Amino acid sequence: MKIIVPYKKKGGKSRLSPLLSPSEREELAEYMLEDVVSTLSKAGLEDVSIVSDEGLNAVLNKIIANSTDPMLIIMPDLPLISSEHILDITSSNEDVVISPGRRGGTNILFLRDPSTFRVDYNGASFLNHLQIAKDVGLMTRVYESFCVSCDIDEVDDLAELIIHGRGKASQYLNNIGVSLHIMGGRVHVNRGRSKDLIRP
Amino acid sequence: MKIIVPYKKKGGKSRLSPLLSPSEREELAEYMLEDVVSTLSKAGLEDVSIVSDEGLNAVLNKIIANSTDPMLIIMPDLPLISSEHILDITSSNEDVVISPGRRGGTNILFLRDPSTFRVDYNGASFLNHLQIAKDVGLMTRVYESFCVSCDIDEVDDLAELIIHGRGKASQYLNNIGVSLHIMGGRVHVNRGRSKDLIRP
Repeated sequence: MKIIVPYKKKGGKSRLSPLLSPSEREELAEYMLEDVVSTLSKAGLEDVSIVSDEGLNAVLNKIIANSTDPMLIIMPDLPLISSEHILDITSSNEDVVISPGRRGGTNILFLRDPSTFRVDYNGASFLNHLQIAKDVGLMTRVYESFCVSCDIDEVDDLAELIIHGRGKASQYLNNIGVSLHIMGGRVHVNRGRSKDLIRP
Repeated sequence: MKIIVPYKKKGGKSRLSPLLSPSEREELAEYMLEDVVSTLSKAGLEDVSIVSDEGLNAVLNKIIANSTDPMLIIMPDLPLISSEHILDITSSNEDVVISPGRRGGTNILFLRDPSTFRVDYNGASFLNHLQIAKDVGLMTRVYESFCVSCDIDEVDDLAELIIHGRGKASQYLNNIGVSLHIMGGRVHVNRGRSKDLIRP
């Protein structure tokens, strides 16, 4: 099985800029990618290709047009995924498995025969992909998971990584002093240590 | 099994005020509660008590201190849950099952013997509840689900309800003309109809 991970090496994760410097954002993105690749490896999947996420649809559709072996397209900013998620998804009997992110995203896409499909990651890609599968007459499974849904794009998303993360990316946040803070009974993410908080 | 649903009848869901009027917020909250109660009913659970969510910890801890029958505490703003989620959680062998919401929330809490536990919904309640169970020596299962994690508090959360919802609450949003809009390739929620969007 071929694994495709779209990844932007430079200048990504700009919505984390209220809290993280450009180099910190780049390092965090790299650690998240390492967590994902390490999880894939634990699931026995080593044939991983990192592709540019510029012009993502065109890049991916060119790849899948000529692919008839099963393919997993997985986002690099999913530091909470485990090998169990990957094995659950790749052992599905359906033609297509879509695991949603928030706001209609597609965080993991499994294609039994990629050549019968085309991707469209613009907008509500979860709905796009459901529709494309339906149009082509493919059987689809929606694989819903909180951990898979947690893509890390915004400062608030870092809370999920701090609370539920166990890999290098969450360790990195700890190392640079990014932690949870409770204000008005609600959880926020900021620099420094919060005093009145149970540590994960 | 006893089911407890904390619910604020008047003036809740203030963070939806950028898009919804006070009466719309109240109606949406009622429809979400109906969706939750209907899902519980489908799971065969009819002994549902709605309790005030003012002074929630005190209210709940008073109830559970004298309860030795299994209890499910479930939030009323989880319109994406299904009876399968409920049955998965209540058939667990562990003493405590915690299903996280975003930002460290506890969206569903299952207690086999409530009298051995106390709740603390302030701040990162997911971490609080893990710690309390550990302190008392209770076996805990974390039940992770995207659908259970989607509590509807903010305007952005409505996207999840529009995309994944199938009950009365999502129908209500449709009726009052709240829908997805794609701007800059990203999904937003607003009034009116978006032209370039695949409908769920």
